[in-house]
Formats: sequence, C-alpha cells, structure tokens
Amino acid sequence: MTRIADVSARSFVALGGGHGLYTSLTALRQVADSLTAVVTVGDDGGSSGRLRSEMDVVPPGDLRMALSALCEDTPWGRTWRDVLQTRLETTGPLQGHAVGNLLIAGLWQHTGDIVEGLDWVARLLHARGRVLPLALEPLEIVAEMRLQDEVRTVRGQVAVATAEGRVVALRLEPAQPRVPAATLEAITEADHVVLGPGSWYTSVLPHFLVAPVAEALVAAAARTIVTLNIAHEDVETVGMDRIDDVRALRRAAPGFVPGAVVLDESHASDPGLVEELERWGTTVVVEQMCLRGAIDRHDPDRLAAAIELAARKVTPGALRSP
Amino acid sequence: MTRIADVSARSFVALGGGHGLYTSLTALRQVADSLTAVVTVGDDGGSSGRLRSEMDVVPPGDLRMALSALCEDTPWGRTWRDVLQTRLETTGPLQGHAVGNLLIAGLWQHTGDIVEGLDWVARLLHARGRVLPLALEPLEIVAEMRLQDEVRTVRGQVAVATAEGRVVALRLEPAQPRVPAATLEAITEADHVVLGPGSWYTSVLPHFLVAPVAEALVAAAARTIVTLNIAHEDVETVGMDRIDDVRALRRAAPGFVPGAVVLDESHASDPGLVEELERWGTTVVVEQMCLRGAIDRHDPDRLAAAIELAARKVTPGALRSP
Repeated sequence: MTRIADVSARSFVALGGGHGLYTSLTALRQVADSLTAVVTVGDDGGSSGRLRSEMDVVPPGDLRMALSALCEDTPWGRTWRDVLQTRLETTGPLQGHAVGNLLIAGLWQHTGDIVEGLDWVARLLHARGRVLPLALEPLEIVAEMRLQDEVRTVRGQVAVATAEGRVVALRLEPAQPRVPAATLEAITEADHVVLGPGSWYTSVLPHFLVAPVAEALVAAAARTIVTLNIAHEDVETVGMDRIDDVRALRRAAPGFVPGAVVLDESHASDPGLVEELERWGTTVVVEQMCLRGAIDRHDPDRLAAAIELAARKVTPGALRSP
Repeated sequence: MTRIADVSARSFVALGGGHGLYTSLTALRQVADSLTAVVTVGDDGGSSGRLRSEMDVVPPGDLRMALSALCEDTPWGRTWRDVLQTRLETTGPLQGHAVGNLLIAGLWQHTGDIVEGLDWVARLLHARGRVLPLALEPLEIVAEMRLQDEVRTVRGQVAVATAEGRVVALRLEPAQPRVPAATLEAITEADHVVLGPGSWYTSVLPHFLVAPVAEALVAAAARTIVTLNIAHEDVETVGMDRIDDVRALRRAAPGFVPGAVVLDESHASDPGLVEELERWGTTVVVEQMCLRGAIDRHDPDRLAAAIELAARKVTPGALRSP
C-alpha cells in the first residue's frame, strides 16, 4: 500500500549539534511544516560543561541553541530567544553562563523529565518545532586519534574537536545510553531526515553510535538527506576532506544509504567525490550554498533551496511507502 | 471635583518585601482588579546577595517572590512560578541560586532596563499585576542599633534583621536613590495603597526614607491601609511591639496618617495600642486574621477580607477625590 504524501504538510527531523544544527534548522523552518531537532548531547565545554559537571545533567547548550533557532519570528519569540542566548557578564562564578542553560537546568530539576523540560522552553519561545536529545544521559565522546606518529585515546567533545590529528575510531560512554521514545518516533515518522552540516565526529556521527537510533536511521535511509560540510571548521578533521567524511559515515553506519547527499558546488570537482557518492548508491544534489563572504558556512536560504530540491528527489512523484 | 469610584475596578498598590509582601499580594489578588507591587530592594543575603555583589544589580529575590505571588492560576502560570522559585541543587557555585533570580538578571542585562525586564517576567507568568522596585539601584539598609549597652552601626538587611537589639535610627545608602517614574505613578494613581505586613525596619519603613516615594505616600495617606504584623518574625524587633512599630512609622513618616490600620484581634487588647492609633487619627479595623496553626502569619483569605473591609471604610460612599 502506498499513500500520496501531502507535500503541503511535510515533517522534517534534523540531527546534529552546535552551529551546524542551528544553520540546518534555520534553513528547514523555511521548508518544513513540522520540524524536530535531535541534538547530540556530548558537549563538555563552557557553560554547558560546567552545568554538566556541577549538576550531572545532559549538557543544555546545543539544545538551547536548537530551540533558539526555532523561536517564533515575533517580538515575543525573538526577545525570549535573545534572553536565553544572553551570557551573564559578572565578576564571579556566574560569568559566561548562558541564561537559557540555567533556565533549562531549572526546568529539568523542577519537572524531573528532560523531554518535558525542553517542551516548556519550546512553548516559551512559541517555537516552530520540537527539540529532543539523542540520549537521556550525558555522553562522553571518546576518539582514538592519530597524533603525530602514535594513536592515543582522546576524551570529551572539546578535546576531540581541538586535538590536531585524525580520528581513527570513535565511541561513546556510556556505549548504550537510554534514548527517549520521542526521539525514535520522530525519526520513524518524519517525511525527511536531515543529517549535517556540523562537526562530523562530535555532532553527526555520534547518532550512529547509539543502537536504536542507528537502527531507526537505517530504516529511514531512503528519505534521509545528508548535507556535507562546505569546509572543515574544526581541527578534528584537519587533513581530511569530504571523501573521508563520507567514508567515516559509511564505516559508522553500515547498511545506511541516504536518499540524497547535498554538496556545495565548490566541492563538485573534488577528485573522486561524486564517484564515491554514486558508488554508495545515493542521489547527488549539487548547489551553490556558501554564505556570501564566508568560505566555510552555509547560507540558510540557499541550504533551504537545496534541501527542498533533494526532498523532491527522494520523494519521486510525491509517492512513498507508508 | 469628585468622581464615583468604580468599585468593580479597584486598583491597589502594595509596598513591602519578602514573605510579608508575598502574603499581602496573595490576599490582594482576591480583591484587586489591578494590582502593583513596589518592592524594597535592600536585600543582601542568599542568591540575591550573591547576584548583587557579582553583577552590581538590584537584588532580584523579593521582586521574583512578588511576581510569583501574581502568577496566573493556570498550569502555565503555576509551572513558570514553580520554575522561577526553584533553587538549583548543585555541587558547585550555582548551589542555591533561584532560577528566577538568574532569569531576571539575564533580562536586565539584555534589556538594560530594570522595569522592562520585570515586565517581561510578568508577561511570562501571565501575571495579574505588575512588580516595580522602590529604587533603580541596590539599597544598603543602615541602622543605628542599641546592642546591649551601646549604640552601634549595623549595615545590610541581613545584619539588621538578625542583630539582637533595637533599631534607634535607620537610613539608606545611597540616601536618595533614583526612583522609577512608574513607581511614583502607581502610588499616585492607585485607589488604595497597602503597607505591610513584613519586616518592619527592612521592608516597610525604607519606603519612607526615599524622598519622592515618601511624598507620594503622604499624598496618598487617606487611601492607605497599614497592616500591622501579627507577631515579629525577625530578631530586629525583639523587645518591641506593635506600639513601637507604629511609633517608628510615625517618626519615619511625619505628616502621614493612614486611612486605616488593620490589626489582628489577638492584639486588640495590647495595652494602649488602639488608643495610640486613634490618637494618630486613623480608623482601626480589628479582624481575626491569623493563619490556622500559626502564631505569626496572616491567612491570605482572612487578610483579604480585612483589607476589603478597610478599603470600604477609607472610601466612604464609594466617593473619593480624584
């Protein structure tokens, strides 16, 4: 049995973390009727890291940023977004804490429920969507990295993202964290799943290291769109390029072949890249997406147009299996 | 010129701080159509005191409590009230901070405007009223106190409230702080002004130490209702009684004769008290207002009924000068 997809009411779920996810959500709110973000919760730096170690909570920072990206475009929504994004300027231990992180920590303590706490922030922002964590416990990202001539274990998102070496293996601690049912449902029920852009090893690949999420992503592969980074912002991938990212994703996610991969035109002529993607069996969408004046960031409007195009390709004839 | 007061749309302004003001607002929301709180900003203890010293801001705690008292009685209003009242439980420097204090500090930093920041919290709570500060800068309460056999200077709300002695003189630093225009307007325009209950020297009397507020209160005296404390909770008034409180108020506020003074029936027979009040020229309202099972706290419902009665007495025939 097939059903006619209602192209006027498309649901998207976007997976990632940090600035990459913020960009992806800013783009997707232009094309999605229903939008859910699933956020890697491996951050251990800054305000989030301090809250994580002081309260043993999931780091709230990337969740706050994703919620901010979804705020209602009204004076109400923009004001609360700006307040949540405000970092306290003090002469004491509160210095640098994002107000939204503190509010989220308070909601978690009060409700005793991570997902319910985030839903209250979404309501506060009149958010155009929902933000969920990848896991219900803080994740430590552990990488085996080639540093100069030896392979060493590097622990923590910040350390992995700033170590000058190549990631040769990646794992999470705990290896099998609890996953919210809502996160799995969102992936299973969305018309489209969007992965990337973002820090590849610490924001994108971790989703495939959590068994039930990886399973849901493999099942959703045909309606999944992967957005490759324009340039690598993080030291974690120095000396690597998009082919390496694709290969790392294939190793992390056996059996996963996305419906489409979106590529900035500046990388269309990268030697062997398009061939590698076609060998994988995915549809390649090449668009000019770079933010004017930048060399490494997506323009949300152009990213939206590219995802729109990719979404049509992975839903041919507006028909898909239910 | 006189106007017929619209008894179906009465406005109240309540002045005070801390738990006394919370009780007063909880009572007044039952009888007021429009309600404004004016909060002493002299607190220097706890979460408020830490924020005050770390960010050089007006202490937010009593403002937060007053806002909480005004929250909408719906799941939305009650949830945000409870979240703002939540104290973070951590193993580090965030320990004990009230979430609402941190949010208010963030709003102040973002808006750059104390009154606008508080109005945003009121909107968040769908509050039944508005909360304003007595002054736009943090106040230090300085008391000359008789401690044993000598008079000493005691600085700060916490120190004054806990020192075991009698206050013989009270002042603020700065002596003449800036006052929000909205605070003066609220007192000038309200149908009724309510003073007390609360810590007499640190929450009630300070309003008379700020010149433009004292002037507005003297002008509003005839429509002002003073609620005397049932028992003294704070050490600051050990050995003093309600007559002393009345005398301290008369000394602090020359020319001020309130329309009515509300007195718990347990104190109606205090030697000389009613005579002292009548000599002052005010109307005395005696009611049973004590919270069942307590010896020193007002029952908000009973307090509401007493204020209702007092308000009728100070607005005879529902007529008053505009």
